[in-house]
Order: sequence, then structure tokens, then C-alpha cells
Amino acid sequence: MSVERILDARLRDRIVSAEQAAALIQPGETVAMSGFTGSGYPKAVPMALAKRIEDVHAQGLPFQIKLMTGASTAPELDGALAKADGIAMRMPFQTDPDARKRINDGKLDYIDIHLSHVAQHVWFGFYGEIDTAVVEVSAIRADGALVPSTSVGNNKTWLDLAKKVIIEVNEWQPADIEGMHDIYYGTALPPHRKPIPLIHANDRIGQTTLDVDPDKIVAVVRTNGPDRNSPFKPIDEDSRLIAGHLIEFLKHEVAKGRLPHNLLPLQSGVGNIPNAVLAGLADSGLRGLSAFTEVIQDGMLDLLKSGVLEYASCTGFALSPEANEEFKRNIRFYRDRIIMRTQEMSNHPELVRRLGCIGMNGMIEVDIYGNVNSTHVMGSRIMNGIGGSGDFTRNGFLSTFLSPSMAKGGSISAIVPMVSHVDHTEHDVSIIVTEQGLADLRGLPPRARARQVIDNCAHPGYRDQLNDYFDRACRDSYGKHTPHLLPEALSWHQRYIDTGSMKA
Amino acid sequence: MSVERILDARLRDRIVSAEQAAALIQPGETVAMSGFTGSGYPKAVPMALAKRIEDVHAQGLPFQIKLMTGASTAPELDGALAKADGIAMRMPFQTDPDARKRINDGKLDYIDIHLSHVAQHVWFGFYGEIDTAVVEVSAIRADGALVPSTSVGNNKTWLDLAKKVIIEVNEWQPADIEGMHDIYYGTALPPHRKPIPLIHANDRIGQTTLDVDPDKIVAVVRTNGPDRNSPFKPIDEDSRLIAGHLIEFLKHEVAKGRLPHNLLPLQSGVGNIPNAVLAGLADSGLRGLSAFTEVIQDGMLDLLKSGVLEYASCTGFALSPEANEEFKRNIRFYRDRIIMRTQEMSNHPELVRRLGCIGMNGMIEVDIYGNVNSTHVMGSRIMNGIGGSGDFTRNGFLSTFLSPSMAKGGSISAIVPMVSHVDHTEHDVSIIVTEQGLADLRGLPPRARARQVIDNCAHPGYRDQLNDYFDRACRDSYGKHTPHLLPEALSWHQRYIDTGSMKA
Repeated sequence: MSVERILDARLRDRIVSAEQAAALIQPGETVAMSGFTGSGYPKAVPMALAKRIEDVHAQGLPFQIKLMTGASTAPELDGALAKADGIAMRMPFQTDPDARKRINDGKLDYIDIHLSHVAQHVWFGFYGEIDTAVVEVSAIRADGALVPSTSVGNNKTWLDLAKKVIIEVNEWQPADIEGMHDIYYGTALPPHRKPIPLIHANDRIGQTTLDVDPDKIVAVVRTNGPDRNSPFKPIDEDSRLIAGHLIEFLKHEVAKGRLPHNLLPLQSGVGNIPNAVLAGLADSGLRGLSAFTEVIQDGMLDLLKSGVLEYASCTGFALSPEANEEFKRNIRFYRDRIIMRTQEMSNHPELVRRLGCIGMNGMIEVDIYGNVNSTHVMGSRIMNGIGGSGDFTRNGFLSTFLSPSMAKGGSISAIVPMVSHVDHTEHDVSIIVTEQGLADLRGLPPRARARQVIDNCAHPGYRDQLNDYFDRACRDSYGKHTPHLLPEALSWHQRYIDTGSMKA
Repeated sequence: MSVERILDARLRDRIVSAEQAAALIQPGETVAMSGFTGSGYPKAVPMALAKRIEDVHAQGLPFQIKLMTGASTAPELDGALAKADGIAMRMPFQTDPDARKRINDGKLDYIDIHLSHVAQHVWFGFYGEIDTAVVEVSAIRADGALVPSTSVGNNKTWLDLAKKVIIEVNEWQPADIEGMHDIYYGTALPPHRKPIPLIHANDRIGQTTLDVDPDKIVAVVRTNGPDRNSPFKPIDEDSRLIAGHLIEFLKHEVAKGRLPHNLLPLQSGVGNIPNAVLAGLADSGLRGLSAFTEVIQDGMLDLLKSGVLEYASCTGFALSPEANEEFKRNIRFYRDRIIMRTQEMSNHPELVRRLGCIGMNGMIEVDIYGNVNSTHVMGSRIMNGIGGSGDFTRNGFLSTFLSPSMAKGGSISAIVPMVSHVDHTEHDVSIIVTEQGLADLRGLPPRARARQVIDNCAHPGYRDQLNDYFDRACRDSYGKHTPHLLPEALSWHQRYIDTGSMKA
């Protein structure tokens, strides 16, 4: 391993091992790390820290940290620290199975907040001080500026606010990623905020590198390891049908003059269904598309390569190994078409509203009135978190939620009388899509929404049961604006807990 | 009555009676009227229209309209048209008892949406075409420009989009209100939107009058009638206590350096508790305050007069008769300190986020995890609507929700295990205040939130019952992240429906 990625001589002197760096983190610290959707997270220090925590625990002593990131990371970070019982508090988003189990066992405190709120709430002082930042970069320039790697997330905020900084320089990241980023340094605390001068999704309004006070850098660690990557799953039939319904709807909106011929900037959640939508767009005949989103996954790279997507703005990646190879091989092509921003910008209400983003997100369940649960299984168990879905749902042009109509082989209906947890309210949700069809809730009062959702989106195997609930609610409910039978409203979820199926 | 308020000679020729104007509205039309919180609504045409609808109904023929406004109006508008069974669909907000009864009887379709979304969703085409606009103004200038009256609401959008326009010129409104308004004409549909050039709550970014194509004006009606006004209620003990807790908290935040000495622009919902907060601010020692809000009520006028509040931005008024006299008497003083905007601006996510507004809103109930219900009594009966509370809660600096801990003489607890309807999610709610105390939910995971809400805000008469639920949920819940017992979660509401009390 060479040190050619570390051009600042002052910082070469601070190169240490991951173990030496981890030793600089003390019990009880608030530690802010890089990482967004498994890209650009530190690869070595968290593992060394987990080992150190285990050693301390073996001596019968306590050692936990409060952990902040951009979003989800990987087994080497969330997984290792959760297994070591090293996390007292985690925010703002995570997807690790070990951490999830601890959260749902009541052993790990998790704060699930809008990704657009994280940086400002930390700046506001709502989360106390940040003791240590651990940030992966792809290089350090001679002037000390940091070249970000495959995610930006909250790194600007962590570097600005942390008392001490540990940098990982990952040589696995392509050197030619330099120039892809756009770090906006025009933010401020109210009452000193000004308009953000971004008008198009591909506007550059900042600089390509991250600033950091070199005196705060206490350690530099060299790494050479890949981002987390998930194998590409072939598109299943449900996802293909969902994508088809949504794209048909978008083309209908273009035909009606409610959307431009090249749509509006797309936001796409992560997963197989959004990937299917992106694949469907490739064959849709639509051209000149753009994206203003959080994460670029395989389907979006394909769209960029084919030219259907002209450019994309993001804050991180979630690629399969094949897509990652393609990305690294053609990094200069993608560098001209992808702009990576802080998540404060990628999810900013001002920008999402101005650009008129089309939000496309998955969900756990939706109720007949259009309230969406994105986070809690059976009302109490966290799945992942709200992530950025609320930022785009509330402030965008259109909010769409996509899911198969059933889960667990039919024992769970994604359409329920009342959701067991609300992340997106009836006031915010426009479009629901399942493999059965699409419900367009725009401009509809509650009972008309219920008809659309049941008729168009519910699985036939649950439709009678939903109609039965809705009909009796319309007859017997305390109020008839949003008819509900409260003793039954959550009974489907309890039935699943008790019997393993929501079926009556 | 003179015609000196109608200086455009072309339009003087179109002066007709309210009955003649109402005759121009046809069954099935979408009619967009002025009015926000009982200010600036048309005083004569809606009454004449209601009479006409009743006459048509008496002949056994159908006659209903779809009705849009800024927000709530008055008995002469919502009340008269609801009593006449003349409304097929109502949006986006209303508070009339007759209309509410029809909505909750399932006889009137009501669409309850964020006030910041109304104008853009109509522009997007989500609500179809507007046939007729009926807009109250205080005067028509010689060049045809319209001088708004005591609310702006969505009037710009209605005048721009309606196929035909009826203007009411209300001579009761003070002539010297001219100059108080700031109508921004820089809006556009995406992808053509640009930053809104407003940096301070008192910036002027538009013009003082509303434009309208004179060829669309089909009738001008002269009126001389007061806005709706509610007598000022003396501040009760609960409201005084709630205000005290909130102001103590705000001063604590100033002391901690998390808020400037003159706070940040205040948003204040309408009602006795917000009025108590405003009255409390007068005696707080805080100075140099500002407001960026929807509605100015008595307390804010007092704060302006005493100089504690330097300026206020709003889109409408809700004043007692005495405060209205004061406003009219000293209109030139207030014109220098109040800026009236379209509600698209007063509630705009871009501006609310940039300014860092402090939202202060009432609620129906909150659950132990911080989810707030602002709209539905017992989950199915609409009270009023979400109004602008969501705009400030999601995008502001701090969101606070204020309510007595009990209602209906103690038979209803405002703190419940699970809210029966969610308007503001756990991700958005920062501060809960009742007469018992204040819960600061910032940076807390769900179970810690429950402890704060129960210990600090619940009435002692319900605290044991809440602790019992929470303790058993922590023990027996399916997941322990957000512990819930689903068969019981909504049982308090059903008990109230069945027995008249939530008490176990």
C-alpha cells in the first residue's frame, strides 16, 4: 500500500493503524461516522473499535458510544459494533440485522429521523456535542482538502463539528471520483440562512472537496476495501407489474399535460421494486430524464449508460458487485453525469419542493385512507427507518408508494384497515401501487380513497375482508368522515401476531 | 354606499346585486372563494347563492358546488352553503359547525390538506379547473388592480386560474389597508421554479395588489359588512400555565445558546392557548420578536403595539370586535409592521425552513411516543382540519404542541397510549406542553419519549393508567422499539364512545 493518496505531508505523519486510531475513542463518546446505504463508510476503525469494546467488556467494564452516520452502513460498522454491544444510541437510520434485533429487544436505543433533519438538528445542538468523527475519503490533497469517496452523507457536518477527526483513506475507491462531488458551504443557522442557489438537479453550487481543520485530525488510517454490495436480484413478476402500473400512470400524466415529456427529477428508494421501475423506464420510450435522489443503484447506472437518464444527483450508492465494477471502469463517464451532495442538500425541503421531485418509495403497509407505515412491523418492531422518504413525500410534486399487495406468502396484507404506525399521513400520500394496480388519491376525500385503495391495490384474497370492514365502518363508525371501528382497526395485526396470518 | 372604492370605470359598469352575481354560478361548478380564518371572505354572494340553491332544491332539482377557499370562513359562507346542502366537496380547511356536522354524517366530502399544498396542487391540475372565483377586496384601483382586504389566502391563484371572476368590494374594510400586502408573482410550475428571494420575515418581495384579467370579471358586488369575529375570552388558568411552561422553555433555550435572544420567527395557531402564549410573551422580558405566521389574533396585535413584536408576516386575521376596532383605528401603525402574503408564501416549506420558524399549535391528543392528532375526534370525526400546522411542524426550527391535559371535564385524556389518527408523526414533533408541564422529545428514542410525556404532561388522574399500559407494553409487546399492546392501543377511545369516559 502506497501513501500516494495522502498528499498532505503534515497528515502523512499521523498515519496509524486502525487499532491505534480506535484507541483514541473513549467510552461514552458521541461518534459520527461516514456512510450512506453501505457506501463510503469507514472500513477498519469501527471493527477495531468493536474489538476494543469487547476487550473492555471482557474485563467487566462498560464501553458504549452514541453512533451517528449518514444512513445505513455495513456489517463491518453497524454489525460489528452492535454485536459488541457497543452502541448505546444509534441515529438516524440503519438496516443491520444484528442492530435491528437489539433495537427490537429493547437493548439499543434508536432514533429514527428524517434524513433532511439530521445535520440541522445536530447544528441546532439538539444532540449535544460530537466527540469524534470517523470519515472515509478517497484521497487527501496536498492542501489538506479531503476528496470524498462513494458517499457524502453528513460528512461536512461531522468534520465541521467534531472535536477530533479520524480519517480513513480507502485506496479501493477510484481515484477519478475526484470532481464528482459538490459540497455546499453556504449553509447557516437561522436567522442567517439564505436561498440555496440550486435551480436544476445538476447545478453545481459548491466545491469538490471537504474542508477540515488539520489540527483536529488525530489519526489517518489507510484502507483498501470494497463498499458493501448486494448481489443483483433478477426482477420478479410482482416488481415488474408494479413498475408497469407506475410507468403507465406517469405517461398518462404526461399525456394529460400534468407532467413534462421528460417528467420531473426522480427520487427512488432502494430495493428491488425501485430497481424494477428504473428498468421499466429504460424501455418506456421516455427520454431526457433526471434524478434528484439519495442513492444510485444498478438501475440508475443502466439508465445513465443508455442515455435515458441525462444526469443524477445523489449522496451515496448501493451497487451490486457487477455494477460497481462498471462504475469504477467508466468512472469518468459517470463523473460527468453524477453529482454527489451532502444529504442536507439531496433531501432538502427547499430543493425537493423547488425541483418538484417525483418520490418513489417502498412501504410496509398502507391503510384504506392512504396513511403509510414505512418503519414498524405490527406497530412495534422497527424494520429499517423512515430515511428520506418523508422528505420527498411531503415536499415533492408527487409521492408514490410501491409494494406487493401481500407479504410472507399471503399471511400479511400490505393493505390494512388502519396502519399500525404512521410515517406518512393521508395529507401527504398521492399514489399507491401494488402488483394489482394503482390508486390515485389526489383530490379525493377519505371514503373515496378507501374505494380506490381496496379496489385497485388490495390482493383479491383480502379484498372481501377489507370491504367488509369498510362497509361496516361506514355504517357503524362514531364519525363518518373517516369511518373506523376502533376495536377492529388493528385486529389484523394482532391476528398475525397470534395466528401467523392476517386472514380472518 | 358610494362607488369611490371602484376606480376602474370599466368595472363600475359591471356592478350588480349579490343575487345577480350568484345567478352566474351554475350547478356542479368548482367555486374558489376568498377567506382565511374568518377574514376577507365574500359577505354577500355566498348567501345569495345559498338562497338560490335552496330555491332550486325546492323545485326538486339538484344544485351543489365544489368549494375551495384559503381556510375557514364564516356562517355567511360555509354555514349558509352547508345548511342549503349546496356543497358537494369542500377543501382545504373549515371550522363551521353546520358543515362539520354534515361532514361527520357522511353527507359532505371534505378534503383536509396542508395549506402550503393547496395552491400548487390546484396549479398542478390535481383538482380540475376552477369555474368561478369569488373574491373580496377592499378596493379596485383605476388601473384595475385589486387591493386585497383582510386575508390573501389563495386569492392570487383563484384569480389567475378561474374562468370567470366575481369581485366583492367591501367598504367596511379600512381603505388604508392598501400597502399592507405583498403579493409574490415569482411562482412557477416545476421545472421552472427559482429560489424565493425572502430572507427575513419582513422582506417585501412582491406587489401590494392582486392582478386579474379584467375580461374575466363578470360581476362586481358592493358590500359593507364586518369580518367574522369572536369575542375575546379571558385567559383561563390552564392556558396561563401552558404559556408559562413554554415561555420558560424558550428562555432556557436562549440561555443555552440554542436560540437567539429575540428567538426566531414565531408561528402561532389560532385559539385561546396561543393567545395566552402571546400574552405571556408580553411580560416575558423578551424583546425584538418577529412572527412569520398564518393568522394574527388579538395577542399579536397587543405585542406589536407594545413593541415586543417588531413585525409580523401573515395571510389573514382572527380578531375580537375590540381588537378589530383597534386595528382599523391605527391601521397606519399596523401597516408599517404587518405584511400580508399569499398562504403559498406564509406556509411555504422553503421559507419556513430558511427562517427557522418556531411552530406553536394546538392538538386534540398526543400519544406517549409523540404522534399528534390534530384533526379527528375518536379517530373518525373531523374537528377542523390540519390547516398549516404540518407546514411549520415539519419544516420549522422547533415544533411545539399545546393542549390542556384533559378535555370534557376530565372524561378525555389528551395523552393516550396511541393516537386514533396521526397528523404529525413522531419524526416531526419536538415539544409537548400541557398545564402539567413540558416534554422535550428532541433527541430521544421512543421509550424515553414515553417517560417524558407521561411524567411531564399527563394529568395525574390518568398517569397511573398510562404507566400501566406502558409498563405492560414494555413487557409484552411484539417488538420493544415502540412497545404497544394492539388490542388495547385504541381502547381508551372506544371506552369513551361506549361509556362517555376514557377512565378505566
